[in-house]
Amino acid sequence: MSTTATTVKKRDKVLAKVRKLRGSLTKIRKPAKTRLENVIEVNSLPVPEVHKRVHQKIEELLSRIINYDDPYLLVPDRSSDNVIYDSVTDMVYLGKKFRKRSFLSIKSAREATITARVLSIIHELLEADIHATKREVFYNDVVLFKDQRESDEALEDVAAMLGVERNSLHVVAAAKGAVIGRLRFREQVGSETHLIDCTRLGTGGWAISPLVDRISGIDSDAEFILVVEKDAAFLRLAEDRFYERYPSIIVTGKGQPDIGTRMFLKLLVRELKLPVFALVDSDPFGVHIMLVYAVGSKRMSYETPFLTIPDIKWLGVRPSDLDKYGIPKTVRIPMTPKDIERGKQLLAEEFIKKRPRYKKEIELMLKRKEKAEIQALASKGFRYLTQKYLPEKLETGDWI
Amino acid sequence: MSTTATTVKKRDKVLAKVRKLRGSLTKIRKPAKTRLENVIEVNSLPVPEVHKRVHQKIEELLSRIINYDDPYLLVPDRSSDNVIYDSVTDMVYLGKKFRKRSFLSIKSAREATITARVLSIIHELLEADIHATKREVFYNDVVLFKDQRESDEALEDVAAMLGVERNSLHVVAAAKGAVIGRLRFREQVGSETHLIDCTRLGTGGWAISPLVDRISGIDSDAEFILVVEKDAAFLRLAEDRFYERYPSIIVTGKGQPDIGTRMFLKLLVRELKLPVFALVDSDPFGVHIMLVYAVGSKRMSYETPFLTIPDIKWLGVRPSDLDKYGIPKTVRIPMTPKDIERGKQLLAEEFIKKRPRYKKEIELMLKRKEKAEIQALASKGFRYLTQKYLPEKLETGDWI
Repeated sequence: MSTTATTVKKRDKVLAKVRKLRGSLTKIRKPAKTRLENVIEVNSLPVPEVHKRVHQKIEELLSRIINYDDPYLLVPDRSSDNVIYDSVTDMVYLGKKFRKRSFLSIKSAREATITARVLSIIHELLEADIHATKREVFYNDVVLFKDQRESDEALEDVAAMLGVERNSLHVVAAAKGAVIGRLRFREQVGSETHLIDCTRLGTGGWAISPLVDRISGIDSDAEFILVVEKDAAFLRLAEDRFYERYPSIIVTGKGQPDIGTRMFLKLLVRELKLPVFALVDSDPFGVHIMLVYAVGSKRMSYETPFLTIPDIKWLGVRPSDLDKYGIPKTVRIPMTPKDIERGKQLLAEEFIKKRPRYKKEIELMLKRKEKAEIQALASKGFRYLTQKYLPEKLETGDWI
Repeated sequence: MSTTATTVKKRDKVLAKVRKLRGSLTKIRKPAKTRLENVIEVNSLPVPEVHKRVHQKIEELLSRIINYDDPYLLVPDRSSDNVIYDSVTDMVYLGKKFRKRSFLSIKSAREATITARVLSIIHELLEADIHATKREVFYNDVVLFKDQRESDEALEDVAAMLGVERNSLHVVAAAKGAVIGRLRFREQVGSETHLIDCTRLGTGGWAISPLVDRISGIDSDAEFILVVEKDAAFLRLAEDRFYERYPSIIVTGKGQPDIGTRMFLKLLVRELKLPVFALVDSDPFGVHIMLVYAVGSKRMSYETPFLTIPDIKWLGVRPSDLDKYGIPKTVRIPMTPKDIERGKQLLAEEFIKKRPRYKKEIELMLKRKEKAEIQALASKGFRYLTQKYLPEKLETGDWI
């Protein structure tokens, strides 16, 4: 890469506002100074620590049996009033409300047995140091679990008991996303360590692995992360090596993002403390996808803080961009009644209600009854996205 | 990787039948000795050659105009009776039937204009040496095309006119598949060449890029290719580094495979001449996915030979495996009426009808009314798939 003084100057000009944003985010995303008291801290933990906690739980149970005590497991309540999320430190805590699962009570014996069985499966995974999917855990004892919902619930219970998020249990969900750009990291695979360099992965990039607990040594000179809805836009950015001109990491969930992709993205954000920009279609589904990255698709849950990016910025394609960037009327698509209904539902979302500028954009979309895909920018030239639209957006700080 | 004499001996024993299959396939998949006469050969061609052919077509048209001739384009007929596929040489040809598109005839003027416009867009892509998706081509001139079907059809016409497949036009479809294992290759990205080593990509692997025309220097010491339906099975194979013990390349389309993934797989098969084994769910959808890899999802089309693997082998999970490998009744799922209907439809497929052993498997599935996922093998241990099931299948030559 030959970088002349002119291109450096141009780059600095484009990135000035991004750098300012990054500075302000670093201040906000500061590490926890004070910790809440009398709560259970939920964390990502390394295998030996989780392993130790599993043994503790089993020993507690055994000692109750030996002492002729009522054998039971204490499972923290996972209902929303017992989950405390501290947005400043981006940490999650569980209150001290517990549910007691006795093996001797008719009411809870089955639940207690399922929880203990899952605890033992987790122990097996940690001993072998391998990962499994939720589905595989279910298949491990179909006779007992009967329904996958039972083993899924028990997995959440065991995670809460141990004060860890699900990935630390070595139970993962397959991922379909990809990443490319200024990023290097290590992944431990069995006895080997692979050094993965996302600047040298052609136009495909790295297929994101959900085994994020194997990742270490994250290294990057990127100045921001760009999350793109669609693989077609990802391909355009990859082919034009956008990340080289504007040091960045580009992530796509290839449509609606899965848990694995979101967890990987969150890991990058935590480690690198970079601003995250969303590039999505200008339609209700595109906005919905951005919200999944921002706050998740369901209400606040136990895993939320390991997955969400509440300070993600809506870069584009925003409804107001269509006129602003002179996107021809011919490539705008009329919204269907279903689209309009979805748009209205978005206005009821907490995340949108709290952000007047988001609300205004969606109102504009609904007023115009027009939507547009990222690819519609190709009407102004195949490289308009990478050479004009994105640089201009970044330079003018045109995100909300 | 420490490879003792014992493990080499074990590996040789497991792979003996795979090697025999590979030898027999190499004989079948021999290069074309004689070429058909009086036909247009359809090929993957490098940019300069495609570029030259575009110029030829434009010059032909211009000389017709200059000579006061009727200006027209000759477009080869793409209907099935004009497409000749030679399964021995795995080549496709177009017969010499043409349709004349005159710019002066009211009937064909619009079609001729669209074809010429697409020809000029292709020229633009080749000049800039960039790729675009079909959707982006459509957005390039929405006013003229009106509907994406029009530009899609014109793309096929231009490909046929130039005697190339669509990828050579630099029009691609985004891919969602991944690859891992004993494979190295180069991808040209702008002025850079990236060397991609799929043995060192953690558990995620390389996110397959549809820009297969950029790929060169494919190098592998694999003995077979394993195509897996689901990313969960891919993850198990990746985490256990299956490809290291049994030299192989592992590809997944993450469900129903897209064109990009199939094209990449076909490229590997052509270059490496390796046997391809399918690992899919034991249900009608799994079999359907295998058929997409084998022969495509629609009837024989212009692009088929660049996408299909007619000699793919059905390794598992086959309906007969359920009893043979003692898969517990509890993890088998009853087929729904919809499943049964789909199973019956499979029996009507040409590909199945020609293969009595495939037919027998599907009939067994329909008789038992049972289906099972690949993950059901986890009921016999998380690593049963990689340590027992697959090695035994390969060793006993248990594929059809």
